[in-house]
Amino acid sequence: MNNTRIEHDFIGEKEIPAEVYYGVQTFRALENFNITGQRISQEPFFVQALAYVKKGAALANRELGVLDPQIADFIIKACDRVIAGEFIDQFPSDMIQGGAGTSVNMNANEVIANIALEMMGHAKGDYQYCHPNNHVNFSQSTNDAYPTAFRIALLNKLTAYTQSLTALSAAFEAKGVEFKNVLKMGRTQLQDAVPMSMGDEFKGFANTLAEEVGRLEDAKQLIAEINMGATAIGTAVNAPAGYPELVTKYLAEITSLPLYLAPDLIEATSDTGAYVQLSGVLKRTAVKISKICNDLRLLSSGPRTGLFEISLPQMQPGSSIMPGKVNPVIPEVVNQTAYYVIGADLTITLAAEAGQLQLNVMEPVIAFSLFTSISYMTNACYTLREKCVLGIVANSARTQEMVMHSVGIVTLLNPIVGYETAAATAKEALQTGKSIYQIVVKERQLITQEKWDELYSFDNLIKPKFVTG
Amino acid sequence: MNNTRIEHDFIGEKEIPAEVYYGVQTFRALENFNITGQRISQEPFFVQALAYVKKGAALANRELGVLDPQIADFIIKACDRVIAGEFIDQFPSDMIQGGAGTSVNMNANEVIANIALEMMGHAKGDYQYCHPNNHVNFSQSTNDAYPTAFRIALLNKLTAYTQSLTALSAAFEAKGVEFKNVLKMGRTQLQDAVPMSMGDEFKGFANTLAEEVGRLEDAKQLIAEINMGATAIGTAVNAPAGYPELVTKYLAEITSLPLYLAPDLIEATSDTGAYVQLSGVLKRTAVKISKICNDLRLLSSGPRTGLFEISLPQMQPGSSIMPGKVNPVIPEVVNQTAYYVIGADLTITLAAEAGQLQLNVMEPVIAFSLFTSISYMTNACYTLREKCVLGIVANSARTQEMVMHSVGIVTLLNPIVGYETAAATAKEALQTGKSIYQIVVKERQLITQEKWDELYSFDNLIKPKFVTG
Amino acid sequence: MNNTRIEHDFIGEKEIPAEVYYGVQTFRALENFNITGQRISQEPFFVQALAYVKKGAALANRELGVLDPQIADFIIKACDRVIAGEFIDQFPSDMIQGGAGTSVNMNANEVIANIALEMMGHAKGDYQYCHPNNHVNFSQSTNDAYPTAFRIALLNKLTAYTQSLTALSAAFEAKGVEFKNVLKMGRTQLQDAVPMSMGDEFKGFANTLAEEVGRLEDAKQLIAEINMGATAIGTAVNAPAGYPELVTKYLAEITSLPLYLAPDLIEATSDTGAYVQLSGVLKRTAVKISKICNDLRLLSSGPRTGLFEISLPQMQPGSSIMPGKVNPVIPEVVNQTAYYVIGADLTITLAAEAGQLQLNVMEPVIAFSLFTSISYMTNACYTLREKCVLGIVANSARTQEMVMHSVGIVTLLNPIVGYETAAATAKEALQTGKSIYQIVVKERQLITQEKWDELYSFDNLIKPKFVTG
Amino acid sequence: MNNTRIEHDFIGEKEIPAEVYYGVQTFRALENFNITGQRISQEPFFVQALAYVKKGAALANRELGVLDPQIADFIIKACDRVIAGEFIDQFPSDMIQGGAGTSVNMNANEVIANIALEMMGHAKGDYQYCHPNNHVNFSQSTNDAYPTAFRIALLNKLTAYTQSLTALSAAFEAKGVEFKNVLKMGRTQLQDAVPMSMGDEFKGFANTLAEEVGRLEDAKQLIAEINMGATAIGTAVNAPAGYPELVTKYLAEITSLPLYLAPDLIEATSDTGAYVQLSGVLKRTAVKISKICNDLRLLSSGPRTGLFEISLPQMQPGSSIMPGKVNPVIPEVVNQTAYYVIGADLTITLAAEAGQLQLNVMEPVIAFSLFTSISYMTNACYTLREKCVLGIVANSARTQEMVMHSVGIVTLLNPIVGYETAAATAKEALQTGKSIYQIVVKERQLITQEKWDELYSFDNLIKPKFVTG
Repeated sequence: MNNTRIEHDFIGEKEIPAEVYYGVQTFRALENFNITGQRISQEPFFVQALAYVKKGAALANRELGVLDPQIADFIIKACDRVIAGEFIDQFPSDMIQGGAGTSVNMNANEVIANIALEMMGHAKGDYQYCHPNNHVNFSQSTNDAYPTAFRIALLNKLTAYTQSLTALSAAFEAKGVEFKNVLKMGRTQLQDAVPMSMGDEFKGFANTLAEEVGRLEDAKQLIAEINMGATAIGTAVNAPAGYPELVTKYLAEITSLPLYLAPDLIEATSDTGAYVQLSGVLKRTAVKISKICNDLRLLSSGPRTGLFEISLPQMQPGSSIMPGKVNPVIPEVVNQTAYYVIGADLTITLAAEAGQLQLNVMEPVIAFSLFTSISYMTNACYTLREKCVLGIVANSARTQEMVMHSVGIVTLLNPIVGYETAAATAKEALQTGKSIYQIVVKERQLITQEKWDELYSFDNLIKPKFVTG
Repeated sequence: MNNTRIEHDFIGEKEIPAEVYYGVQTFRALENFNITGQRISQEPFFVQALAYVKKGAALANRELGVLDPQIADFIIKACDRVIAGEFIDQFPSDMIQGGAGTSVNMNANEVIANIALEMMGHAKGDYQYCHPNNHVNFSQSTNDAYPTAFRIALLNKLTAYTQSLTALSAAFEAKGVEFKNVLKMGRTQLQDAVPMSMGDEFKGFANTLAEEVGRLEDAKQLIAEINMGATAIGTAVNAPAGYPELVTKYLAEITSLPLYLAPDLIEATSDTGAYVQLSGVLKRTAVKISKICNDLRLLSSGPRTGLFEISLPQMQPGSSIMPGKVNPVIPEVVNQTAYYVIGADLTITLAAEAGQLQLNVMEPVIAFSLFTSISYMTNACYTLREKCVLGIVANSARTQEMVMHSVGIVTLLNPIVGYETAAATAKEALQTGKSIYQIVVKERQLITQEKWDELYSFDNLIKPKFVTG
Repeated sequence: MNNTRIEHDFIGEKEIPAEVYYGVQTFRALENFNITGQRISQEPFFVQALAYVKKGAALANRELGVLDPQIADFIIKACDRVIAGEFIDQFPSDMIQGGAGTSVNMNANEVIANIALEMMGHAKGDYQYCHPNNHVNFSQSTNDAYPTAFRIALLNKLTAYTQSLTALSAAFEAKGVEFKNVLKMGRTQLQDAVPMSMGDEFKGFANTLAEEVGRLEDAKQLIAEINMGATAIGTAVNAPAGYPELVTKYLAEITSLPLYLAPDLIEATSDTGAYVQLSGVLKRTAVKISKICNDLRLLSSGPRTGLFEISLPQMQPGSSIMPGKVNPVIPEVVNQTAYYVIGADLTITLAAEAGQLQLNVMEPVIAFSLFTSISYMTNACYTLREKCVLGIVANSARTQEMVMHSVGIVTLLNPIVGYETAAATAKEALQTGKSIYQIVVKERQLITQEKWDELYSFDNLIKPKFVTG
Repeated sequence: MNNTRIEHDFIGEKEIPAEVYYGVQTFRALENFNITGQRISQEPFFVQALAYVKKGAALANRELGVLDPQIADFIIKACDRVIAGEFIDQFPSDMIQGGAGTSVNMNANEVIANIALEMMGHAKGDYQYCHPNNHVNFSQSTNDAYPTAFRIALLNKLTAYTQSLTALSAAFEAKGVEFKNVLKMGRTQLQDAVPMSMGDEFKGFANTLAEEVGRLEDAKQLIAEINMGATAIGTAVNAPAGYPELVTKYLAEITSLPLYLAPDLIEATSDTGAYVQLSGVLKRTAVKISKICNDLRLLSSGPRTGLFEISLPQMQPGSSIMPGKVNPVIPEVVNQTAYYVIGADLTITLAAEAGQLQLNVMEPVIAFSLFTSISYMTNACYTLREKCVLGIVANSARTQEMVMHSVGIVTLLNPIVGYETAAATAKEALQTGKSIYQIVVKERQLITQEKWDELYSFDNLIKPKFVTG
């Protein structure tokens, strides 16, 4: 029994395992590109998006009468199976390839042609009935099909990511409510500043992350611009009149995404600005999350010789040698994820700058980097939420004591005793170790006990009323 | 005669030259920070913005009755003089400082206090009548005054930058019109692809840059959010009720900028996300301009052994040894500017990530980097426009000849003779050096001369109609 | 039958599948860290290196009499099996974790303890006979064991990488010999400069890469510094006297690597400078390879409307739409690999900067990034060599014709006719399209035919003799 | 009276102010390049190095008999005056230019020619007696003269930088001695670990910086490789036989630098690897210094609600609103300098990757970035040393109390009571707030008071002896 088939392209012939749905060009890609060991099949959204593109093209080609309706129908059915999740293992190409995505586009063309052939009752490879280039790729080039599929995949992946980010923000918001009445010292430049509510600190974390969702929505609008019908370089060579608009309409319908056609197809075909923008937003969020994790680690430092304002949930023993040590392992892993994403943004920047003339040939590494960054960020958001934020406990007795023992509370006396006297009081406190209360009420009697109680009440410390002497 | 005066702060006393308007704290900054040799005075928009902030605060404080109206009036008059451009040399601090901008804020407080004192008829340094902290800085902290001034300065600088970008885009657009009828070969992956109009190529440059203006507008909306009234950490300690809204209203009025108050002052005081976003947009534009300059250099390569599709204006002899050599020096300097901006974006990213707890103390290096990047980009846009783009000439005879001699035009035969025959024709052309015309019309007679003329007319090459066999 | 066992640590109990060799702490790591989907087991050199470290420690502990010799022997035997490649699937932790490597160190401790227990005839988990912490980890902390294993793994991985780089350099060197007599135009700033030998151009590629091997050797010397015996923070707490030197000696012996003990164990425990240096060298090589790939793509551009000085081997059809198009896919994939490595260098930089006080907790993402970069670069070097460089063909007739038709050859006339006349000749050639020969010999008769033949002989063009008029 | 002169090049004529020593090509550069506002004259080492190169060439040309000895002598005398520091204002070009340094090289050629002319008794611009190209630039091209001057300037600038780094390291070393007997808690992952000497912590800072001096020496060896005699592209066209070696010998002599000739002049002319390596080392040092500054800020946090282990010298009031607040402004400004240097390293990386074919045209931005980074780092090292490190005070009573009150000291009990009991003790301490001493000696009587005193003596805490139960 024959368990291979022969396929050829203009480079020559190749023996292909009979059972695989991909063909000679995918096979060459497997031989040519072995860099990362990461495969296209690891990105189900991408495989699905490739099938969406091929289906959309077939629908438009059929309607415009340029593709045999029967072949179109089988292509569409084949695409539907890939969209539903079948055949994902038939996309084995390395995530980074040369050829600006040609290998991935041809992988999709070949797999869909062979599925269609099989459904038609033909043997795989019998391409006269359904040809990867002449039928599946009709009215398309890699240079429009590949970026369009990439963008559809991004939009779907971003939906999942946005959910994780929203959930993380909500978790901080809930802690903001929970810690509303926890009085703590605010710090600027790591130096004691003025009192605040710990709830407001956590609400700040919530709000700064919530804002990222808006930035993602802005970036998604740029990603939703596609260049279907551009074919090779944006001149729409070999695409029928009306095709670009029609295929875009179909793609928007079948994906339920707000896709729209680029106004300048030549510009759109070489431009990678939308990816740079999206990566910039991912980087910005990474920077913010990293800052928050730095804060969580700092605030939970100790337990005896650190700030110890909060306690993080204990996830694992922290040392192979120091008994009882527990580390902030979850913020730590999230910090590291952020560093990865910031590095990946640089990779994307370099790749975007390297585009030449009518195409950016470095798009595969942009895809690899963006897919990876979004996955890692999604995982990091859920990890941080579930294994850390939800279980954070405020050490409120300690934080309150630190406030009352601090020198920074002297700032509230400014309007009453003047900056100069306040500064002198602060200086004395620092030199003698005395509390502000001791100096101001007991010794110097600058204000009465009553005034003190009013000024240094919880409510006034957290949200100080303006007073004058 | 006494040509110094003595000032003091809680660190101690300093002898200050009598003629300078800044005081002891600026003086300390000059001693402490000597890193870049670049001074605040090099950014007139920033000095002006500091005065706007002080004026806005004085207006609000006066209206709220917390500042002596007479002192307020003199502060306002002093601010107006700084806003008008006087005293710029009184802002000598190094662009990078520690202290999160305290030195710059105090520099403004001191200069304005001393101008006011002088206008009141008092000696400089006689701060009982108008005090840098107690009067000029009233209801403010560095932590709200500094970033607000920074943002006002950014918005004004961005106006100039946007103009330069728009002008550059328009120059490319005009070339797009001028080169409308220049036929040239499109290239993907540096390999001959299919023909196109050179006008469309330049129109693409115009459009891709025009899009950046939209991104800048988005970023400016984030920059327009200010945190006046936050004072130290966002709790508004020592600011009167209603002050944040009122000072924001005044600032929007006197600057004519769409400034608005941050909804969460605690979040806003530590957040540097707006700078990261803006820097990301600057980086994106730099990436695009660098790609365009790479293309210009490639397209003008030669004159004899390169592509030589266009000629750039000759700006200077290109070699100290090779006679007649002229280099694309303007795109080259713009490429280098882009690399600077991309590097500065990393500096900003690092600084943003380093924020801790209630403040980001690294804001001065963010300001330095953003100001520099915007200046350099503005200069680069004008330079590229005036000294290069406006004078570009198309070598249209050569580009047309290259197209007709190319193999890539075979793509237009696909729908008529089929991909396989087209590929065989291409192979023969490449192996024998023959033209496609020779093989297709003369030798193999695959199409008639008439069909050839239709298919390979200028109009059809530039905007190919869809045809089938 | 029982197919789980119960293990506990001070956080609590966990049910562990009976068949696995790792224990409760690895189990927690699997629950806690799910970011990349990449596992420690993907780096066999790292797993092996962990076993080397545990073996080295057991040997030293046994010799110093602080570990029961029988237990030590079983630990050593267990390590030998891991070193030989067994049990690699027992290292399932995510490549990025919090905890500064504690999970990976404990993974090794647990697996080795359970292998030893099994060899002793005890049940897995019966740790009284061989305990992960008390025996396998004896005299160690994660903070010395983990970085030491990391460094051993790096040194072994770098050996493979160096081979790939050397092979690539040799391939360019061979092309340098092959193309020795190919005359071509040298170009600076993409403008025609002066003639040269194509062999010298390729020899330049060879030499610039060969130099990287030297830089790698320098970096390896820094990597070979280990901190065994530092235990928790470098004070050697809980390690017996003489242990640091002894375990280092043993480790050098069993790994055959030139490992040496850090002179300042406290500095060494928090320092990640050696990784930054190594990553910097990888980045430098990536920059060089990327430049070379840019050149290869430029030199092979065309075939009809580009430079087309060389032809790269055809690896796959280059377009789904343009017949006969072949792209430089191998240099393209190598460029993208370089961008990845440059991005990873930034990740490493960020992680290195984030170290705090006595430890850098971000070392796992440094390990992930370095391991990945080295793997990708190794793959890229072999791919570039085998699928591209070895098959490059020089289009020597074309390159020679371009030289003789160029204007740049006028430079050789400088010493004879003077710079001014040479420049005028160049100008005339450019304006009229005439060749330099036509103007200089035929029309202006500035030099004789004989002098021309001498000056513009192949030998003199490639290696010009100094002449004066 | 005539206060301009007319000069021309092959682009055309220009009117030049009579008093300036530079000529038409520098004048064009001033018109063409207006990006940074930073001028070559800001780098005296660079101007001096350009004169060294011109002098070296003249010496070699004279000896080889290819340059009129009288002209050579005047060129040499002119160079000596520039080397001595005269005429620095005659180098006004922007630090970033297109043209790969041609403008800077021509600036030097023109200034030196005109100084020579003046010394000869001729008018400026009377180039028949001493010509910028034909005499001053003889046997040179920008492509060898410019990078050689750049490298000479780097080596001299690095000497100053190395001194600053060494001085900083020595300051930390001295603090290491001063704090030898200060007991403090070591921390890993911001969690209390085990005790240590503060002296050892500062010694670690000293050692990690001292190591950088070695890395700089390695990098300087690469920088010392020059390509004089390469002329245009490395083929030595228009340079006499023996010239490369001879000019290198003379340059080494007159600069007293260990300069040596590149073995492959073609490789050397396009290679920028040495700059990438040097920038990598600067970045590494920046990373280390940034980490140290982070630590200093963390250790001095407080004074009441932070770690407050050390006090930094008070340099300036820390707040315009909070009385008595003092901030760690010096480490803050050094952190920001480090971010600048890391960003500049990216600029250099991008520029290095952008080299094409026989030259890297982006070298001016590499020069700008390296010069700036070295200057800023030098300033930062001195600033950190003088205004911070020298005045650091240890709060030893507090640090000692924190150690004794910590739970981390339980680690020392491991070998005596076993890890399990130690962990249980730690847990009890954390839950009850009791000290380890209270539990271990007073309540559970696990060890005697005597044993406690031995184990928890200062000497044993700082350098623990290995003990077993």
